[in-house]
Amino acid sequence: MSFPLAPGATIGILGGGQLGRMLAMAAARIGFDVVILTPETNSPAARVAAGAIVAAYDDVTALDALADRCQVITCEFENVPARALAHLEQRGAMVAPDSKAFALAQDRLAEKTFLNEAGLPTVGFAQIDSEDELHAALARFGAPLLLKTRRGGYDGKGQVWVRSADDASPAFETIGRRPAIAETPADFVRECAVIAARARDGQTAFYPLTRSEHEAGILRRTLAPAEAAPATLAAAGEAARRLLEALGYVGVLGLELFERANGSLLVNEFAPRVHNTGHWTLDGCVVDQFEQHIRAVAGWPLGPTDAIARVEMLNLIGEDVGRWSEWVSDRSARLWLYGKAEARAGRKMGHVNLVSPLAS
Amino acid sequence: MSFPLAPGATIGILGGGQLGRMLAMAAARIGFDVVILTPETNSPAARVAAGAIVAAYDDVTALDALADRCQVITCEFENVPARALAHLEQRGAMVAPDSKAFALAQDRLAEKTFLNEAGLPTVGFAQIDSEDELHAALARFGAPLLLKTRRGGYDGKGQVWVRSADDASPAFETIGRRPAIAETPADFVRECAVIAARARDGQTAFYPLTRSEHEAGILRRTLAPAEAAPATLAAAGEAARRLLEALGYVGVLGLELFERANGSLLVNEFAPRVHNTGHWTLDGCVVDQFEQHIRAVAGWPLGPTDAIARVEMLNLIGEDVGRWSEWVSDRSARLWLYGKAEARAGRKMGHVNLVSPLAS
Repeated sequence: MSFPLAPGATIGILGGGQLGRMLAMAAARIGFDVVILTPETNSPAARVAAGAIVAAYDDVTALDALADRCQVITCEFENVPARALAHLEQRGAMVAPDSKAFALAQDRLAEKTFLNEAGLPTVGFAQIDSEDELHAALARFGAPLLLKTRRGGYDGKGQVWVRSADDASPAFETIGRRPAIAETPADFVRECAVIAARARDGQTAFYPLTRSEHEAGILRRTLAPAEAAPATLAAAGEAARRLLEALGYVGVLGLELFERANGSLLVNEFAPRVHNTGHWTLDGCVVDQFEQHIRAVAGWPLGPTDAIARVEMLNLIGEDVGRWSEWVSDRSARLWLYGKAEARAGRKMGHVNLVSPLAS
Repeated sequence: MSFPLAPGATIGILGGGQLGRMLAMAAARIGFDVVILTPETNSPAARVAAGAIVAAYDDVTALDALADRCQVITCEFENVPARALAHLEQRGAMVAPDSKAFALAQDRLAEKTFLNEAGLPTVGFAQIDSEDELHAALARFGAPLLLKTRRGGYDGKGQVWVRSADDASPAFETIGRRPAIAETPADFVRECAVIAARARDGQTAFYPLTRSEHEAGILRRTLAPAEAAPATLAAAGEAARRLLEALGYVGVLGLELFERANGSLLVNEFAPRVHNTGHWTLDGCVVDQFEQHIRAVAGWPLGPTDAIARVEMLNLIGEDVGRWSEWVSDRSARLWLYGKAEARAGRKMGHVNLVSPLAS
């Protein structure tokens, strides 16, 4: 295998959702073929890909078949088992980002420990494997604490607030008495995110800061480029750069941040993949996060990350998608739908980018 | 069948080349599935589509299978036999644009006759079915004349100049003594094009005028929005509007124009499909020609056609594609590659859009 991959090469993607769909379209635009591996039949990504393998992520035969067809393999789903990626690496497949980034991102305790070691500040946290440890954490940090399972859970699932010592037992019960982490509250005034990229040669690039708004733990809206103090913008870029270097990362990652009242930042978490807070780049940048990720994993130079437009991104969640016909009539709206048949509550069905000129 | 089609519907495309590839990606972006019918295995379009039928365009069984899977059928290839489309129409399939537009566009004599009847000026022309008729045309118009087969030929193929009466016999021989048309020279100073769209409800929309530059009969470069006198811009829009109305057209079409020294326009030809001179819209407009075509055939309202950027489009022809790595490093360049394995001379392998701010 030699990089850069020439157009005509085949890229494997683990995961078949909307992120894989948009990655596959970006890859096709610059001349690559894509093969999707996902347990889902007729997945959103497979319907725009040259090939698909329907199998469990840890199906070794399927993984080997994917490796045989692809010059590089990447992921659109952060919960692909790290051991599946490790298997691919052990048989000599090129995997980017690597299994280590996934192993860290899949374990909230390992992730926050790694972030702190890399010099990225987070909320206070403690490992919780028993009610006793939760009581000890309450004694150390005070209430409230947010108790989260170390693994699994997303969009606000698998977590519960512990507001007093009396809550400790039911809270630990609520999360199934699983290995957990207790976190101090983030005293933030705003949430934001940085989409960061690192190439195979170590080149790094950062998109402008994105302001994020969540409801019920689900991202509803982003604004980009976000206004912030110069020191805050610099700190966000520096945090992303440190993380990319510490991971030896190749590809795009999403770094979620809390902005405190004094403008300083705490890292919430990172996702070793393209990220919902980067969907604005599809219509706000010459090279969007999806093409950027494909460029990075293919060993191409990174593209420019400057904003060429201001974008308000609205997620279409569940029944929101039924309003497609309204968005189609909005002259500033670019509609992205994910091809999901069933508009279940909380399911990300598409998004709209509302595009306007950059303030001069 | 009721329009507008909701996301989740399936759109059939006849033809598997780069135009189908970009149509399929645009359709997917707004939530449609695509099935490609083409005689080519592993075609550029099929590799980004939910389904593909590999069959000849006039294979009735294949056409019927396509109609069974799709709520509307369109074309990316202007030489799809009009009778294939007529077959689909007769069995009740929704076909847009319709077989009539293709029948006209496939016969240069019928096309120019239709254009003149619709009030669109063209060069002088005469039907040529024999050497005698060619001599009569030379007597009527004088030399030189451009002799073209009525059907087939593209990118400068199937045509020959007749510079004197002595040329008549060898010229008619050169084009295989086939039914032909003789055209007077177009005394143009510039070539340009309008990408026009008409919705199912009769709404029309026109992208800004594009300047076109050909070499050896192949489009090499476009500039958009093109500068031109207000009267010229108005005439281009009016010509496109008349053509759409005369055809009762649904979808996007490309109208190629000659601009004369006095700013007046002659129609060269129209293509009943998305068009190479509209590739700039991919990076210069909120809704590009591909999404616009999908919107029109799906019964959606048309999107805005204003330019939001200035775009220089360069076709990557044959070995040009080998320079992909240079374009990737150009910060203003957006690269579109078509996934064609073999870089044959004259073959359109991709294009680059060089994006810059609109002059204010």
